[in-house]
Amino acid sequence: MRLQEMLSTHPRKPPVEISAISDAVRRIYECADANIACADACLGEDMVQNLVRCIRLNQDCADICEVTGKLLSRQTEGDSSSIRAQLQACIAANRACAAECDKHAPMHEHCRICGEACRDSEEVCRNLLDKFPSGGAGQA
Amino acid sequence: MRLQEMLSTHPRKPPVEISAISDAVRRIYECADANIACADACLGEDMVQNLVRCIRLNQDCADICEVTGKLLSRQTEGDSSSIRAQLQACIAANRACAAECDKHAPMHEHCRICGEACRDSEEVCRNLLDKFPSGGAGQA
Amino acid sequence: MRLQEMLSTHPRKPPVEISAISDAVRRIYECADANIACADACLGEDMVQNLVRCIRLNQDCADICEVTGKLLSRQTEGDSSSIRAQLQACIAANRACAAECDKHAPMHEHCRICGEACRDSEEVCRNLLDKFPSGGAGQA
Amino acid sequence: MRLQEMLSTHPRKPPVEISAISDAVRRIYECADANIACADACLGEDMVQNLVRCIRLNQDCADICEVTGKLLSRQTEGDSSSIRAQLQACIAANRACAAECDKHAPMHEHCRICGEACRDSEEVCRNLLDKFPSGGAGQA
Repeated sequence: MRLQEMLSTHPRKPPVEISAISDAVRRIYECADANIACADACLGEDMVQNLVRCIRLNQDCADICEVTGKLLSRQTEGDSSSIRAQLQACIAANRACAAECDKHAPMHEHCRICGEACRDSEEVCRNLLDKFPSGGAGQA
Repeated sequence: MRLQEMLSTHPRKPPVEISAISDAVRRIYECADANIACADACLGEDMVQNLVRCIRLNQDCADICEVTGKLLSRQTEGDSSSIRAQLQACIAANRACAAECDKHAPMHEHCRICGEACRDSEEVCRNLLDKFPSGGAGQA
Repeated sequence: MRLQEMLSTHPRKPPVEISAISDAVRRIYECADANIACADACLGEDMVQNLVRCIRLNQDCADICEVTGKLLSRQTEGDSSSIRAQLQACIAANRACAAECDKHAPMHEHCRICGEACRDSEEVCRNLLDKFPSGGAGQA
Repeated sequence: MRLQEMLSTHPRKPPVEISAISDAVRRIYECADANIACADACLGEDMVQNLVRCIRLNQDCADICEVTGKLLSRQTEGDSSSIRAQLQACIAANRACAAECDKHAPMHEHCRICGEACRDSEEVCRNLLDKFPSGGAGQA
């Protein structure tokens, strides 16, 4: 994984262990990709009418995961409160999207895989939350 | 404003008045743009070393505003909890970035304008928070 | 418009007149927003099945406009060849999307407005192309 | 890789072999991530003043790779001309950024790794170009 190498050569010490960050970022981006692909696969289904809510939540979840992954990839002078709040938004979007994907999983394999990706992302976000100090606009 | 026209011709009834949404989205995107431009202007300053934290927070704030604006622009089958959580992330990023921009405002006019844009965005996000129902993964 | 103010207070001289850049960025972002809203409005229509290609092209056009607007908003040490190539991608996406939106304009007002936004964006991108030097990886 | 699984379960036949697309998307996103991390690592260096152009090109390259990856991840009713034009923009950004990263590679390992990621992305984009039909707004 290039990201772990990149983070290891960063001039500043990260607030969280590099392996935890790089693993989390990988899973969050993987979730973003799964959601982009799931929205598109749903759009290509004959029964697209039944998948409208899934497409909407896929789009939001993809957008939210993407920005969450970017924030976590940056180690220079971040704001801990913003990162925590963004992790919480990611958890909320992952949950809502996984719940919707699960409904369609028996019919559509792409929804089943996407639901799994959302749960993985939610788990790593929850684990990271504890590692960023809460309270005040502290430096991440 | 095209966005207000677009939202008015949407087939589904929005959860919030269209004028409130379109005004909010406009200010949030304006904040995103201001942050992209402020990061770039800071990067072009001779004293860029003093502006490192400002550039970092500008980038995060731009990314967060962008996704928040996208979620609010969508009216079809959204998830209220995710939208509220994203609004809270936007408020946190706006606050942190405004505080940093204000430090450089006496020296750099672009930081002064960007700080204002962050406060405007924070205000509209706070006002919208009350309009999305909290508790549970309700439909937005 | 805050963007014009922001660009005016930038420490470096832009390669193109500030009013031309800020007007172009405004129209390109307006096109991005229109496409996000059009994709969502199409998704909310009863006849979503007929709008699948429109939704796909809206998504691509929104994503492409967004990145094109970001590149143009930055004035520090850009690469002219990359900016020109991105402008050309934006023109291609605007054209394809306008053609598709026009097909649905008689039925859906949001498609009509979005088609107009695409044509406006295409026009400003074409005008800007001439202003960035071609040939080689020159500085923008 | 989840993306390959996702693409395999897509209801529509892709215009290009799934393994080629999923490998390309993986490398393009990896390049996006490397650029986000390189911009941030450069920003954290004591000699940030010397890295201003690298940061600028990293930002543009990250933004362009991200949208290119999204377009390629979508298989439903795309526009071949837009995808080709976006691939060309990605190639231009990868080249410009790799050239700048290489200048700093002897001093900064993150620039060396990022330059490699740019060259990998450029290569897969070039290979894909031939696989999308040129001429006209054909369906991808």
